Amino acid sequence: MVSPELRQRVAAELPHWAVEGEELAGTWRFDDFAGALAAAVTVGMLAERANHHPDLVIGWGRLMVRLTSHDVGGPTGRDVDLALAIQARIGRPPQ
Amino acid sequence: MVSPELRQRVAAELPHWAVEGEELAGTWRFDDFAGALAAAVTVGMLAERANHHPDLVIGWGRLMVRLTSHDVGGPTGRDVDLALAIQARIGRPPQ
Repeated sequence: MVSPELRQRVAAELPHWAVEGEELAGTWRFDDFAGALAAAVTVGMLAERANHHPDLVIGWGRLMVRLTSHDVGGPTGRDVDLALAIQARIGRPPQ
Repeated sequence: MVSPELRQRVAAELPHWAVEGEELAGTWRFDDFAGALAAAVTVGMLAERANHHPDLVIGWGRLMVRLTSHDVGGPTGRDVDLALAIQARIGRPPQ
């Protein structure tokens, strides 16, 4: 369940992210596998600090971050906050 | 396309792995997110050395490894070899 307020916040603050089902998802491209893995570790550090953990899908030159709040069954403000922190740390929005 | 020979080798040598579509897949459980991320980095190092890169799906307490040979459109002996190296390094077969 994704509230209209959450959708508005994503559209305004995270225009390169997508609400897919119950998840807030963003994908980045990298030059190789090592770049994607390094970014996954960076995201993992932020997740650990926030005590809020996304699913990460690593492929060759690709990292997908999938955020949700399992207790609510959909993304919340906490996911938006972590998404903002992730793209700030990676240094660019998802593609 | 998965050859009968490959299926036999997986059944004999990798009984805890599954052939799913065009991929050879195994999932491990861990105590927390950090354990899963650390295992993903370990797998990434083996992949880099082999110059053969799986997709990795990291979740809280969970790592899925998905191996295929894109040039052939399915798992090959190269994927079996890497799967064996991965489970040896992690120290236990997938669950």
